[in-house]
Amino acid sequence: MSSRKVAGPEIETLIQLLAKLPGLGPRSAKRATLHLIQKKDQLFAPLTKAMEVALDEVKVCSICGNIDTSDPCTTCSDPRRDDSTIVVVEDVSDLWALERVSAVNARYHVLGGTLSPLDEVTPEDLNIARLVERVRQGAVTEVILAVNATVEGQTTAHYVTDQLAGLDVKISRLAHGVPVGGELDYLDEGTLAQALKARTPF
Amino acid sequence: MSSRKVAGPEIETLIQLLAKLPGLGPRSAKRATLHLIQKKDQLFAPLTKAMEVALDEVKVCSICGNIDTSDPCTTCSDPRRDDSTIVVVEDVSDLWALERVSAVNARYHVLGGTLSPLDEVTPEDLNIARLVERVRQGAVTEVILAVNATVEGQTTAHYVTDQLAGLDVKISRLAHGVPVGGELDYLDEGTLAQALKARTPF
Repeated sequence: MSSRKVAGPEIETLIQLLAKLPGLGPRSAKRATLHLIQKKDQLFAPLTKAMEVALDEVKVCSICGNIDTSDPCTTCSDPRRDDSTIVVVEDVSDLWALERVSAVNARYHVLGGTLSPLDEVTPEDLNIARLVERVRQGAVTEVILAVNATVEGQTTAHYVTDQLAGLDVKISRLAHGVPVGGELDYLDEGTLAQALKARTPF
Repeated sequence: MSSRKVAGPEIETLIQLLAKLPGLGPRSAKRATLHLIQKKDQLFAPLTKAMEVALDEVKVCSICGNIDTSDPCTTCSDPRRDDSTIVVVEDVSDLWALERVSAVNARYHVLGGTLSPLDEVTPEDLNIARLVERVRQGAVTEVILAVNATVEGQTTAHYVTDQLAGLDVKISRLAHGVPVGGELDYLDEGTLAQALKARTPF
């Protein structure tokens, strides 16, 4: 905000809070606020109502750690999903990303982060014990580790694998390789080496 | 949204409504929703509260047509502003834009649009009569027409000027010319011609 106030403190507060949303800055938050005010009945009122409801209803799924308005969550309570496979992801955003492409019709498990000694994230801070328990219950035959291809993600994947050792379950991870539509010239060496190593018959 | 639902209907509704904000699309609305849910206490709850308050308090200023949480609005009730000058703008967003640069310390008048026969916007739909009334009351010595340099903006400016004819008030408009930092090579002929005609001593 400039030094001069354009509007009352209630509107200034709204602009400042909207500016904290990813994708919005101070300037676009101002534009969004104006848009809301000008579309009071069509957008402002319904959005406020939707936020009140969601804020009130949102909870963490006690089975998989997903965030939803019901517990068990939508994916855990969906009867058409394959109970024998659990896709392990770091965050809810990863679950949403996988669901966006409808890549898999299995159950999920959200770890809630990655192991990171520097940030003091220990195994107890992650939703790992619950995963072991789910696998131990027996219906699961495959765990797909869909963690990020970062050092923390891979470290976490190794730790989870260790915890699942001895249980009768297949553990797999996402393939590394050339992104679809990607150009070799722009790929890093690590990815290129992995893609070559994991080459498939044509 | 993809065909498959990631979350309960309350969250889907929230995503769809957030996607209607300028600057957000379906994908960034999803990201924003997740961000809200993950920062429930720090952002989601305060933002919802701020929206409730703003929604409840927002009103149109009976003097100038600005939108604010008080009537008269913040600029109309500011005692440090110059009562002798009224800056006429098309929309509240223009008022905010002028205030952002603190270009002028005067009063404002928001027309609420421009004359447009095609869109069936007639003088009665705009906040023009109230402007004439304000000028007629006598304290105003100058009206600055800060309308957009579009056909509709200029048509509206002419109409407003006609309505103020006979009243003892100076009417001015924003200067046309080369934008600060602009390059001549990229300017349209109309702007160049105007800039040349309105050249100032160096």
